[in-house]
Amino acid sequence: MDGSKTTPTPGESTSTPGAQPPAPVLVACAQLPLAVGDLVGNRAAADRAIEAAAAAGVGVLVLPELANSGYVFRDAAHAAELAEPLDGPTVTAWAAAAARHGMVIVGGFCERDEDGAVRNSAVLVDPTGVRALYRKAHLFGTEKAVFVPGDTRPPVVETAVGRIGVMVCYDLEFPEWVRDVALRDAELLCAPVNWPLFPRPEGERAAEVVRVQADAAVNRMFVAACDRTGTENGVEWTGGSVITDPDGFPLAGPATETGESLLVAACALDQARDKRIGEHNHVFADRRPELYSR
Amino acid sequence: MDGSKTTPTPGESTSTPGAQPPAPVLVACAQLPLAVGDLVGNRAAADRAIEAAAAAGVGVLVLPELANSGYVFRDAAHAAELAEPLDGPTVTAWAAAAARHGMVIVGGFCERDEDGAVRNSAVLVDPTGVRALYRKAHLFGTEKAVFVPGDTRPPVVETAVGRIGVMVCYDLEFPEWVRDVALRDAELLCAPVNWPLFPRPEGERAAEVVRVQADAAVNRMFVAACDRTGTENGVEWTGGSVITDPDGFPLAGPATETGESLLVAACALDQARDKRIGEHNHVFADRRPELYSR
Repeated sequence: MDGSKTTPTPGESTSTPGAQPPAPVLVACAQLPLAVGDLVGNRAAADRAIEAAAAAGVGVLVLPELANSGYVFRDAAHAAELAEPLDGPTVTAWAAAAARHGMVIVGGFCERDEDGAVRNSAVLVDPTGVRALYRKAHLFGTEKAVFVPGDTRPPVVETAVGRIGVMVCYDLEFPEWVRDVALRDAELLCAPVNWPLFPRPEGERAAEVVRVQADAAVNRMFVAACDRTGTENGVEWTGGSVITDPDGFPLAGPATETGESLLVAACALDQARDKRIGEHNHVFADRRPELYSR
Repeated sequence: MDGSKTTPTPGESTSTPGAQPPAPVLVACAQLPLAVGDLVGNRAAADRAIEAAAAAGVGVLVLPELANSGYVFRDAAHAAELAEPLDGPTVTAWAAAAARHGMVIVGGFCERDEDGAVRNSAVLVDPTGVRALYRKAHLFGTEKAVFVPGDTRPPVVETAVGRIGVMVCYDLEFPEWVRDVALRDAELLCAPVNWPLFPRPEGERAAEVVRVQADAAVNRMFVAACDRTGTENGVEWTGGSVITDPDGFPLAGPATETGESLLVAACALDQARDKRIGEHNHVFADRRPELYSR
Protein backbone atom coordinates (compact mmCIF):
# COMPACT_ATOMS: atom_id res chain seq x y z
CA MET A 1 0.00 0.00 0.00
CA ASP A 2 1.39 3.33 -1.00
CA GLY A 3 0.22 6.75 0.14
CA SER A 4 0.48 8.13 -3.36
CA LYS A 5 -2.15 5.69 -4.63
CA THR A 6 -4.77 7.24 -2.42
CA THR A 7 -3.80 10.74 -3.50
CA PRO A 8 -6.34 12.45 -5.74
CA THR A 9 -5.32 14.51 -8.71
CA PRO A 10 -4.03 17.97 -7.71
CA GLY A 11 -6.73 20.58 -7.83
CA GLU A 12 -9.58 18.06 -7.92
CA SER A 13 -12.70 19.71 -6.54
CA THR A 14 -14.76 18.07 -3.87
CA SER A 15 -17.55 20.58 -3.40
CA THR A 16 -21.01 19.82 -4.72
CA PRO A 17 -22.86 22.91 -5.95
CA GLY A 18 -26.00 23.53 -3.93
CA ALA A 19 -25.06 21.03 -1.21
CA GLN A 20 -25.69 21.96 2.43
CA PRO A 21 -22.51 22.63 4.36
CA PRO A 22 -21.72 19.59 6.52
CA ALA A 23 -22.04 19.87 10.31
CA PRO A 24 -18.80 20.59 12.17
CA VAL A 25 -16.85 17.46 13.03
CA LEU A 26 -15.20 16.94 16.40
CA VAL A 27 -11.46 16.62 15.88
CA ALA A 28 -9.31 15.37 18.75
CA CYS A 29 -5.68 14.91 19.69
CA ALA A 30 -4.84 12.20 22.25
CA GLN A 31 -1.72 13.44 24.00
CA LEU A 32 -0.36 10.23 25.49
CA PRO A 33 2.47 9.21 27.78
CA LEU A 34 4.21 6.36 25.96
CA ALA A 35 7.26 4.29 26.82
CA VAL A 36 9.77 2.96 24.36
CA GLY A 37 9.51 -0.80 24.02
CA ASP A 38 6.28 -1.16 25.98
CA LEU A 39 4.19 -2.43 23.07
CA VAL A 40 1.39 -3.68 25.29
CA GLY A 41 1.21 -0.56 27.46
CA ASN A 42 1.39 1.76 24.47
CA ARG A 43 -1.39 -0.12 22.68
CA ALA A 44 -3.51 0.08 25.81
CA ALA A 45 -2.95 3.86 26.04
CA ALA A 46 -4.12 4.28 22.43
CA ASP A 47 -7.10 2.03 23.10
CA ARG A 48 -8.11 4.13 26.11
CA ALA A 49 -7.86 7.30 24.04
CA ILE A 50 -9.90 5.83 21.22
CA GLU A 51 -12.70 4.74 23.57
CA ALA A 52 -12.71 8.12 25.32
CA ALA A 53 -12.82 9.92 22.00
CA ALA A 54 -15.65 7.73 20.73
CA ALA A 55 -17.62 8.40 23.91
CA ALA A 56 -17.14 12.14 23.30
CA GLY A 57 -18.47 11.88 19.76
CA VAL A 58 -15.14 12.52 18.08
CA GLY A 59 -15.12 12.03 14.32
CA VAL A 60 -11.37 12.37 13.67
CA LEU A 61 -8.82 11.26 16.26
CA VAL A 62 -5.10 11.92 15.95
CA LEU A 63 -2.59 9.82 17.92
CA PRO A 64 1.10 10.66 18.43
CA GLU A 65 4.07 9.71 16.27
CA LEU A 66 5.43 6.18 16.84
CA ALA A 67 2.48 5.44 19.10
CA ASN A 68 3.15 1.69 19.11
CA SER A 69 6.86 1.69 19.91
CA GLY A 70 7.77 4.89 21.71
CA TYR A 71 10.58 7.09 20.41
CA VAL A 72 13.86 6.96 22.28
CA PHE A 73 15.35 3.75 20.84
CA ARG A 74 18.70 2.42 22.03
CA ASP A 75 19.74 1.90 18.41
CA ALA A 76 18.51 0.77 15.00
CA ALA A 77 18.22 -2.86 16.13
CA HIS A 78 15.95 -1.79 18.97
CA ALA A 79 13.62 0.00 16.55
CA ALA A 80 13.66 -2.95 14.15
CA GLU A 81 12.67 -5.26 16.98
CA LEU A 82 9.66 -3.07 17.82
CA ALA A 83 8.57 -2.46 14.21
CA GLU A 84 5.50 -4.17 12.84
CA PRO A 85 3.97 -4.49 9.39
CA LEU A 86 0.97 -2.52 8.20
CA ASP A 87 -1.22 -5.55 8.88
CA GLY A 88 0.27 -6.02 12.37
CA PRO A 89 -1.64 -5.69 15.65
CA THR A 90 -1.48 -1.87 15.98
CA VAL A 91 -3.01 -0.82 12.69
CA THR A 92 -5.37 -3.79 12.77
CA ALA A 93 -6.69 -2.62 16.15
CA TRP A 94 -7.02 0.98 14.97
CA ALA A 95 -8.93 -0.09 11.83
CA ALA A 96 -11.27 -2.25 13.91
CA ALA A 97 -11.89 0.65 16.30
CA ALA A 98 -12.53 3.01 13.39
CA ALA A 99 -15.14 0.59 12.03
CA ARG A 100 -16.66 -0.01 15.46
CA HIS A 101 -17.03 3.70 16.21
CA GLY A 102 -17.52 5.10 12.72
CA MET A 103 -14.53 7.37 13.07
CA VAL A 104 -11.32 8.37 11.32
CA ILE A 105 -8.06 7.63 13.16
CA VAL A 106 -4.67 9.00 12.15
CA GLY A 107 -1.75 7.58 14.10
CA GLY A 108 1.98 7.12 13.86
CA PHE A 109 3.68 3.75 14.15
CA CYS A 110 7.06 2.13 13.80
CA GLU A 111 6.70 0.12 10.61
CA ARG A 112 8.60 -2.78 9.09
CA ASP A 113 7.89 -2.40 5.39
CA GLU A 114 7.52 -5.13 2.76
CA ASP A 115 11.30 -5.12 2.20
CA GLY A 116 12.13 -5.27 5.90
CA ALA A 117 13.15 -1.60 6.10
CA VAL A 118 12.12 0.28 9.25
CA ARG A 119 9.97 3.35 8.69
CA ASN A 120 8.55 6.19 10.75
CA SER A 121 5.05 5.86 9.34
CA ALA A 122 1.51 7.09 9.82
CA VAL A 123 -1.80 5.63 8.70
CA LEU A 124 -5.25 6.99 8.14
CA VAL A 125 -7.93 4.41 8.88
CA ASP A 126 -11.68 4.84 8.63
CA PRO A 127 -14.67 2.44 8.80
CA THR A 128 -13.71 1.03 5.39
CA GLY A 129 -10.17 0.11 6.50
CA VAL A 130 -6.70 1.51 5.84
CA ARG A 131 -7.07 4.47 3.50
CA ALA A 132 -3.50 5.76 3.43
CA LEU A 133 -0.03 4.87 4.58
CA TYR A 134 2.59 7.62 4.76
CA ARG A 135 6.29 7.33 5.51
CA LYS A 136 7.98 10.35 7.09
CA ALA A 137 10.11 12.07 4.48
CA HIS A 138 12.01 14.54 6.71
CA LEU A 139 13.76 12.66 9.52
CA PHE A 140 14.78 14.35 12.76
CA GLY A 141 17.78 13.78 14.99
CA THR A 142 18.86 10.19 15.52
CA GLU A 143 15.93 8.96 13.42
CA LYS A 144 18.38 9.18 10.54
CA ALA A 145 20.27 6.23 11.99
CA VAL A 146 17.08 4.23 12.54
CA PHE A 147 14.61 4.84 9.73
CA VAL A 148 14.57 4.84 5.94
CA PRO A 149 12.89 8.09 4.86
CA GLY A 150 9.81 7.98 2.67
CA ASP A 151 10.01 9.29 -0.86
CA THR A 152 6.39 9.82 -1.78
CA ARG A 153 4.24 12.89 -1.27
CA PRO A 154 1.95 13.04 1.75
CA PRO A 155 -1.52 11.59 1.17
CA VAL A 156 -4.77 13.52 1.03
CA VAL A 157 -7.76 11.28 1.68
CA GLU A 158 -11.40 11.95 0.94
CA THR A 159 -13.24 10.73 4.06
CA ALA A 160 -16.88 10.87 5.09
CA VAL A 161 -16.18 14.03 7.11
CA GLY A 162 -13.79 15.87 4.80
CA ARG A 163 -10.46 15.78 2.98
CA ILE A 164 -7.61 14.93 5.33
CA GLY A 165 -3.87 15.23 4.74
CA VAL A 166 -1.30 13.30 6.74
CA MET A 167 2.33 13.97 7.61
CA VAL A 168 4.62 13.42 10.60
CA CYS A 169 6.32 15.88 12.98
CA TYR A 170 9.43 17.49 11.41
CA ASP A 171 7.65 17.35 8.02
CA LEU A 172 5.55 20.27 9.33
CA GLU A 173 8.63 22.49 9.35
CA PHE A 174 8.93 22.33 5.55
CA PRO A 175 6.34 24.75 4.18
CA GLU A 176 6.73 23.14 0.76
CA TRP A 177 5.39 19.85 2.16
CA VAL A 178 2.47 21.50 3.92
CA ARG A 179 1.65 23.49 0.79
CA ASP A 180 1.60 20.26 -1.17
CA VAL A 181 -1.33 18.77 0.76
CA ALA A 182 -3.10 22.13 0.88
CA LEU A 183 -2.93 22.52 -2.91
CA ARG A 184 -4.56 19.10 -3.17
CA ASP A 185 -7.48 20.53 -1.20
CA ALA A 186 -6.80 19.07 2.23
CA GLU A 187 -9.24 20.70 4.65
CA LEU A 188 -7.57 19.26 7.73
CA LEU A 189 -3.94 18.27 8.12
CA CYS A 190 -3.41 15.60 10.80
CA ALA A 191 0.12 15.23 12.11
CA PRO A 192 1.28 12.73 14.70
CA VAL A 193 4.30 14.38 16.37
CA ASN A 194 6.85 13.82 19.14
CA TRP A 195 8.21 17.26 20.00
CA PRO A 196 11.26 17.12 22.30
CA LEU A 197 11.18 20.05 24.70
CA PHE A 198 13.52 22.89 23.69
CA PRO A 199 14.21 25.93 25.88
CA ARG A 200 12.11 28.97 25.06
CA PRO A 201 11.76 32.48 26.44
CA GLU A 202 9.36 32.96 29.33
CA GLY A 203 5.80 33.43 28.12
CA GLU A 204 6.49 32.17 24.59
CA ARG A 205 4.65 29.30 22.95
CA ALA A 206 6.77 26.42 21.71
CA ALA A 207 8.19 27.27 18.28
CA GLU A 208 6.64 24.03 16.98
CA VAL A 209 3.17 25.35 17.85
CA VAL A 210 3.89 28.69 16.19
CA ARG A 211 4.93 26.92 13.00
CA VAL A 212 1.71 24.88 13.01
CA GLN A 213 -0.29 28.10 13.38
CA ALA A 214 1.48 29.55 10.35
CA ASP A 215 1.09 26.30 8.38
CA ALA A 216 -2.66 26.62 8.90
CA ALA A 217 -2.91 30.34 8.20
CA VAL A 218 -0.93 30.58 4.97
CA ASN A 219 -2.97 27.70 3.54
CA ARG A 220 -6.29 28.50 5.22
CA MET A 221 -6.82 24.94 6.44
CA PHE A 222 -7.25 23.26 9.82
CA VAL A 223 -4.24 21.54 11.39
CA ALA A 224 -4.28 19.02 14.26
CA ALA A 225 -0.86 18.12 15.68
CA CYS A 226 -0.86 15.41 18.35
CA ASP A 227 2.16 15.43 20.67
CA ARG A 228 3.46 13.26 23.49
CA THR A 229 3.52 14.07 27.19
CA GLY A 230 5.93 13.10 29.96
CA THR A 231 9.53 11.99 29.63
CA GLU A 232 11.18 8.95 28.07
CA ASN A 233 14.76 7.87 28.69
CA GLY A 234 15.73 11.42 29.63
CA VAL A 235 13.87 13.13 26.77
CA GLU A 236 11.17 15.50 27.97
CA TRP A 237 8.28 16.06 25.57
CA THR A 238 6.77 19.47 24.85
CA GLY A 239 3.21 18.27 25.30
CA GLY A 240 2.13 21.00 22.91
CA SER A 241 -0.73 19.33 21.03
CA VAL A 242 -2.80 21.90 19.20
CA ILE A 243 -5.76 22.13 16.82
CA THR A 244 -5.87 25.36 14.79
CA ASP A 245 -8.45 26.97 12.57
CA PRO A 246 -7.75 28.30 9.03
CA ASP A 247 -6.75 31.68 10.51
CA GLY A 248 -4.03 29.90 12.47
CA PHE A 249 -5.62 30.50 15.86
CA PRO A 250 -5.85 27.58 18.31
CA LEU A 251 -9.29 26.02 18.72
CA ALA A 252 -7.92 23.58 21.33
CA GLY A 253 -4.56 23.71 23.03
CA PRO A 254 -1.74 24.24 22.94
CA ALA A 255 -1.91 21.73 25.77
CA THR A 256 -0.12 22.84 28.90
CA GLU A 257 -1.03 20.20 31.45
CA THR A 258 1.13 17.16 31.88
CA GLY A 259 -0.35 13.71 31.84
CA GLU A 260 -2.72 12.00 29.45
CA SER A 261 -5.20 14.39 27.86
CA LEU A 262 -7.67 14.58 25.03
CA LEU A 263 -8.00 17.91 23.21
CA VAL A 264 -11.24 18.26 21.27
CA ALA A 265 -12.35 21.00 18.86
CA ALA A 266 -15.41 21.34 16.65
CA CYS A 267 -14.14 22.03 13.14
CA ALA A 268 -16.39 23.15 10.27
CA LEU A 269 -14.02 21.66 7.73
CA ASP A 270 -15.85 23.12 4.75
CA GLN A 271 -14.52 26.54 5.85
CA ALA A 272 -11.14 25.37 4.63
CA ARG A 273 -12.45 25.16 1.08
CA ASP A 274 -12.71 28.93 1.00
CA LYS A 275 -9.25 30.34 0.33
CA ARG A 276 -10.37 33.95 0.06
CA ILE A 277 -9.24 36.77 2.36
CA GLY A 278 -11.75 39.55 1.92
CA GLU A 279 -12.96 40.55 -1.51
CA HIS A 280 -9.69 40.78 -3.35
CA ASN A 281 -7.45 37.97 -2.18
CA HIS A 282 -7.22 34.19 -2.43
CA VAL A 283 -4.21 32.56 -0.85
CA PHE A 284 -3.77 30.10 -3.72
CA ALA A 285 -4.69 32.32 -6.67
CA ASP A 286 -2.37 35.01 -5.30
CA ARG A 287 0.64 32.67 -5.50
CA ARG A 288 3.25 33.38 -8.21
CA PRO A 289 4.48 29.83 -8.87
CA GLU A 290 6.16 30.86 -12.10
CA LEU A 291 8.55 32.92 -9.97
CA TYR A 292 9.19 30.28 -7.29
CA SER A 293 12.24 28.09 -7.23
CA ARG A 294 12.37 24.73 -5.50
CA MET B 1 17.87 49.36 -11.57
CA ASP B 2 16.60 45.90 -11.01
CA GLY B 3 16.61 43.97 -7.75
CA SER B 4 17.71 40.83 -9.52
CA LYS B 5 20.94 42.48 -10.63
CA THR B 6 22.06 42.82 -7.04
CA THR B 7 21.17 39.22 -6.28
CA PRO B 8 24.16 36.96 -5.72
CA THR B 9 24.33 33.45 -7.05
CA PRO B 10 22.22 31.02 -5.02
CA GLY B 11 24.24 29.23 -2.41
CA GLU B 12 27.17 31.62 -2.61
CA SER B 13 29.06 31.54 0.67
CA THR B 14 29.91 34.70 2.50
CA SER B 15 31.81 33.34 5.48
CA THR B 16 35.55 33.71 5.64
CA PRO B 17 37.34 30.80 7.31
CA GLY B 18 39.10 31.90 10.46
CA ALA B 19 37.38 35.30 10.53
CA GLN B 20 36.14 36.63 13.88
CA PRO B 21 32.37 36.70 14.15
CA PRO B 22 31.17 40.28 13.62
CA ALA B 23 29.73 42.21 16.56
CA PRO B 24 25.93 42.18 16.82
CA VAL B 25 24.27 44.95 14.83
CA LEU B 26 21.40 46.99 16.17
CA VAL B 27 18.36 46.42 13.95
CA ALA B 28 15.37 48.73 14.33
CA CYS B 29 11.81 49.11 13.10
CA ALA B 30 10.32 52.61 13.05
CA GLN B 31 6.59 52.11 13.57
CA LEU B 32 5.19 55.39 12.24
CA PRO B 33 1.82 57.08 12.01
CA LEU B 34 1.52 58.14 8.36
CA ALA B 35 -1.26 59.87 6.48
CA VAL B 36 -2.19 59.23 2.89
CA GLY B 37 -1.24 62.16 0.68
CA ASP B 38 0.78 64.01 3.32
CA LEU B 39 4.09 63.76 1.49
CA VAL B 40 5.77 66.42 3.64
CA GLY B 41 4.51 65.06 6.96
CA ASN B 42 5.35 61.49 6.05
CA ARG B 43 8.87 62.43 4.98
CA ALA B 44 9.30 64.32 8.26
CA ALA B 45 8.18 61.26 10.25
CA ALA B 46 10.75 59.09 8.47
CA ASP B 47 13.42 61.75 9.01
CA ARG B 48 12.68 61.85 12.74
CA ALA B 49 12.90 58.07 12.93
CA ILE B 50 16.18 58.00 11.04
CA GLU B 51 17.76 60.60 13.33
CA ALA B 52 16.50 58.80 16.45
CA ALA B 53 17.81 55.49 15.15
CA ALA B 54 21.19 57.00 14.31
CA ALA B 55 21.42 58.48 17.79
CA ALA B 56 20.72 55.02 19.22
CA GLY B 57 23.52 53.46 17.17
CA VAL B 58 21.22 51.53 14.87
CA GLY B 59 22.95 49.83 11.95
CA VAL B 60 19.87 48.65 10.01
CA LEU B 61 16.64 50.64 10.09
CA VAL B 62 13.39 49.39 8.57
CA LEU B 63 10.61 51.84 7.68
CA PRO B 64 6.99 50.91 6.85
CA GLU B 65 5.48 50.06 3.47
CA LEU B 66 4.53 53.05 1.31
CA ALA B 67 6.24 55.35 3.81
CA ASN B 68 6.18 58.32 1.44
CA SER B 69 2.55 58.24 0.37
CA GLY B 70 0.47 56.46 3.00
CA TYR B 71 -1.73 53.55 2.04
CA VAL B 72 -5.45 54.22 1.83
CA PHE B 73 -5.66 55.82 -1.62
CA ARG B 74 -8.95 57.08 -3.03
CA ASP B 75 -8.20 55.35 -6.32
CA ALA B 76 -5.44 54.56 -8.80
CA ALA B 77 -5.16 58.19 -9.88
CA HIS B 78 -4.56 59.23 -6.29
CA ALA B 79 -1.68 56.76 -5.95
CA ALA B 80 -0.24 57.84 -9.29
CA GLU B 81 -0.28 61.45 -8.14
CA LEU B 82 1.69 60.56 -5.00
CA ALA B 83 4.17 58.23 -6.70
CA GLU B 84 7.75 59.29 -7.24
CA PRO B 85 10.67 57.88 -9.18
CA LEU B 86 13.56 56.02 -7.59
CA ASP B 87 15.64 59.21 -7.81
CA GLY B 88 12.85 61.29 -6.26
CA PRO B 89 13.03 63.13 -2.94
CA THR B 90 12.21 60.18 -0.66
CA VAL B 91 14.86 57.70 -1.71
CA THR B 92 17.34 60.52 -2.24
CA ALA B 93 16.82 61.62 1.36
CA TRP B 94 17.12 58.07 2.69
CA ALA B 95 20.35 57.49 0.74
CA ALA B 96 21.80 60.76 2.04
CA ALA B 97 20.88 59.79 5.60
CA ALA B 98 22.39 56.33 5.14
CA ALA B 99 25.64 57.95 4.01
CA ARG B 100 25.56 60.56 6.77
CA HIS B 101 25.02 57.99 9.51
CA GLY B 102 26.80 54.96 8.04
CA MET B 103 23.66 52.89 8.24
CA VAL B 104 21.47 50.63 6.12
CA ILE B 105 17.87 51.78 5.56
CA VAL B 106 15.12 49.61 4.09
CA GLY B 107 11.87 51.42 3.38
CA GLY B 108 8.76 51.13 1.29
CA PHE B 109 7.63 53.81 -1.13
CA CYS B 110 5.02 54.45 -3.77
CA GLU B 111 7.05 54.38 -6.99
CA ARG B 112 6.46 55.64 -10.50
CA ASP B 113 8.68 53.38 -12.59
CA GLU B 114 10.57 54.22 -15.78
CA ASP B 115 7.48 53.34 -17.85
CA GLY B 116 5.12 55.39 -15.70
CA ALA B 117 3.60 52.34 -13.95
CA VAL B 118 2.84 52.71 -10.24
CA ARG B 119 4.55 50.19 -7.99
CA ASN B 120 4.47 49.22 -4.34
CA SER B 121 8.25 49.22 -3.94
CA ALA B 122 10.97 48.99 -1.35
CA VAL B 123 14.60 50.04 -1.47
CA LEU B 124 17.70 49.11 0.44
CA VAL B 125 20.12 52.03 0.70
CA ASP B 126 23.49 52.09 2.43
CA PRO B 127 26.38 54.56 2.56
CA THR B 128 27.27 53.70 -1.05
CA GLY B 129 23.78 54.53 -2.35
CA VAL B 130 20.81 52.53 -3.59
CA ARG B 131 21.74 48.87 -3.43
CA ALA B 132 18.43 47.26 -4.34
CA LEU B 133 14.98 48.11 -5.59
CA TYR B 134 12.20 45.59 -5.09
CA ARG B 135 8.62 45.73 -6.38
CA LYS B 136 6.00 43.87 -4.36
CA ALA B 137 5.01 40.70 -6.18
CA HIS B 138 1.99 39.64 -4.08
CA LEU B 139 -0.54 42.48 -3.94
CA PHE B 140 -3.13 42.74 -1.18
CA GLY B 141 -6.71 44.00 -1.29
CA THR B 142 -7.36 47.08 -3.37
CA GLU B 143 -3.65 47.35 -4.20
CA LYS B 144 -4.55 45.21 -7.21
CA ALA B 145 -6.44 48.16 -8.66
CA VAL B 146 -3.59 50.57 -7.97
CA PHE B 147 -0.24 48.87 -8.51
CA VAL B 148 1.48 46.79 -11.15
CA PRO B 149 2.97 43.75 -9.36
CA GLY B 150 6.68 43.08 -9.58
CA ASP B 151 7.89 40.03 -11.42
CA THR B 152 11.42 39.61 -10.17
CA ARG B 153 12.64 37.69 -7.15
CA PRO B 154 13.30 39.57 -3.93
CA PRO B 155 16.84 40.94 -3.60
CA VAL B 156 19.49 39.75 -1.18
CA VAL B 157 22.17 42.38 -0.63
CA GLU B 158 25.62 41.93 0.86
CA THR B 159 26.03 44.93 3.18
CA ALA B 160 28.77 45.92 5.61
CA VAL B 161 26.81 44.35 8.48
CA GLY B 162 25.45 41.21 6.80
CA ARG B 163 23.35 39.81 3.99
CA ILE B 164 19.90 41.39 3.90
CA GLY B 165 16.81 40.26 1.98
CA VAL B 166 13.92 42.59 1.18
CA MET B 167 10.23 42.00 0.55
CA VAL B 168 6.96 43.78 1.33
CA CYS B 169 4.04 42.85 3.62
CA TYR B 170 1.77 40.21 2.00
CA ASP B 171 4.86 38.69 0.33
CA LEU B 172 5.72 37.34 3.82
CA GLU B 173 2.65 35.07 3.69
CA PHE B 174 4.10 33.06 0.80
CA PRO B 175 6.64 30.69 2.32
CA GLU B 176 8.07 30.06 -1.14
CA TRP B 177 9.09 33.72 -1.39
CA VAL B 178 10.65 33.77 2.06
CA ARG B 179 12.49 30.52 1.34
CA ASP B 180 13.87 32.08 -1.81
CA VAL B 181 15.80 34.80 0.02
CA ALA B 182 16.84 32.37 2.76
CA LEU B 183 18.31 29.93 0.23
CA ARG B 184 20.36 32.83 -1.13
CA ASP B 185 21.86 33.17 2.36
CA ALA B 186 19.93 36.16 3.66
CA GLU B 187 20.80 36.52 7.34
CA LEU B 188 18.17 39.18 7.96
CA LEU B 189 14.93 39.67 6.07
CA CYS B 190 13.66 43.26 6.25
CA ALA B 191 10.02 43.79 5.39
CA PRO B 192 8.20 47.10 5.29
CA VAL B 193 4.55 46.25 6.03
CA ASN B 194 1.13 47.88 6.54
CA TRP B 195 -0.95 45.34 8.46
CA PRO B 196 -4.64 46.28 8.63
CA LEU B 197 -6.07 45.24 12.00
CA PHE B 198 -8.09 42.02 11.81
CA PRO B 199 -10.13 40.64 14.72
CA ARG B 200 -8.36 37.99 16.78
CA PRO B 201 -9.16 35.93 19.84
CA GLU B 202 -8.38 37.47 23.22
CA GLY B 203 -4.77 36.94 24.20
CA GLU B 204 -3.63 35.93 20.72
CA ARG B 205 -0.86 37.63 18.80
CA ALA B 206 -1.75 38.99 15.38
CA ALA B 207 -1.61 36.20 12.81
CA GLU B 208 0.80 38.35 10.79
CA VAL B 209 3.30 38.27 13.67
CA VAL B 210 2.92 34.49 14.05
CA ARG B 211 3.66 34.02 10.36
CA VAL B 212 6.80 36.17 10.67
CA GLN B 213 7.94 34.03 13.59
CA ALA B 214 7.51 30.89 11.48
CA ASP B 215 9.20 32.52 8.47
CA ALA B 216 12.24 33.10 10.69
CA ALA B 217 12.23 29.69 12.36
CA VAL B 218 11.88 27.42 9.35
CA ASN B 219 14.74 29.28 7.66
CA ARG B 220 16.80 30.03 10.75
CA MET B 221 17.25 33.71 9.87
CA PHE B 222 16.38 37.02 11.52
CA VAL B 223 13.27 38.85 10.32
CA ALA B 224 12.38 42.51 10.96
CA ALA B 225 8.86 43.54 9.93
CA CYS B 226 8.07 47.24 10.31
CA ASP B 227 4.37 48.08 10.59
CA ARG B 228 2.25 51.23 10.80
CA THR B 229 0.44 52.61 13.82
CA GLY B 230 -2.77 54.58 14.17
CA THR B 231 -5.63 54.80 11.71
CA GLU B 232 -5.96 56.19 8.19
CA ASN B 233 -9.26 56.90 6.44
CA GLY B 234 -11.03 54.36 8.63
CA VAL B 235 -8.37 51.63 8.39
CA GLU B 236 -6.84 50.76 11.75
CA TRP B 237 -3.31 49.40 11.67
CA THR B 238 -2.16 46.43 13.72
CA GLY B 239 0.97 48.18 14.96
CA GLY B 240 2.59 44.77 15.28
CA SER B 241 6.20 45.51 14.30
CA VAL B 242 8.48 42.68 15.37
CA ILE B 243 12.11 41.61 15.14
CA THR B 244 12.64 37.86 15.54
CA ASP B 245 15.68 35.68 16.03
CA PRO B 246 16.42 32.53 13.98
CA ASP B 247 14.39 30.43 16.44
CA GLY B 248 11.37 32.58 15.62
CA PHE B 249 11.19 34.20 19.04
CA PRO B 250 10.74 37.99 19.25
CA LEU B 251 13.82 40.01 20.20
CA ALA B 252 11.80 43.24 20.08
CA GLY B 253 8.05 43.61 19.86
CA PRO B 254 5.53 42.70 18.81
CA ALA B 255 4.76 46.34 19.48
CA THR B 256 1.64 46.89 21.49
CA GLU B 257 1.70 50.60 22.26
CA THR B 258 0.03 53.01 19.92
CA GLY B 259 1.86 56.03 18.62
CA GLU B 260 5.25 56.46 17.06
CA SER B 261 7.81 53.97 18.35
CA LEU B 262 11.24 52.61 17.57
CA LEU B 263 11.86 48.92 18.28
CA VAL B 264 15.53 48.03 18.58
CA ALA B 265 17.18 44.61 18.89
CA ALA B 266 20.82 43.54 18.88
CA CYS B 267 21.15 40.84 16.22
CA ALA B 268 24.24 38.67 15.84
CA LEU B 269 23.50 38.15 12.16
CA ASP B 270 26.22 35.55 11.70
CA GLN B 271 24.07 33.17 13.78
CA ALA B 272 21.78 32.97 10.76
CA ARG B 273 24.57 31.36 8.74
CA ASP B 274 24.27 28.26 10.89
CA LYS B 275 21.30 26.23 9.66
CA ARG B 276 21.90 23.29 11.97
CA ILE B 277 19.45 22.08 14.63
CA GLY B 278 21.44 19.93 17.00
CA GLU B 279 23.92 17.38 15.70
CA HIS B 280 21.82 15.69 13.05
CA ASN B 281 19.73 18.32 11.32
CA HIS B 282 20.19 21.25 8.97
CA VAL B 283 17.05 23.04 7.81
CA PHE B 284 18.30 23.40 4.25
CA ALA B 285 20.11 20.07 3.81
CA ASP B 286 17.05 18.28 5.22
CA ARG B 287 14.83 19.64 2.45
CA ARG B 288 13.64 17.19 -0.22
CA PRO B 289 13.34 19.54 -3.21
CA GLU B 290 13.14 16.64 -5.64
CA LEU B 291 9.78 15.81 -4.06
CA TYR B 292 8.43 19.37 -3.93
CA SER B 293 6.03 20.75 -6.48
CA ARG B 294 5.60 24.44 -7.21
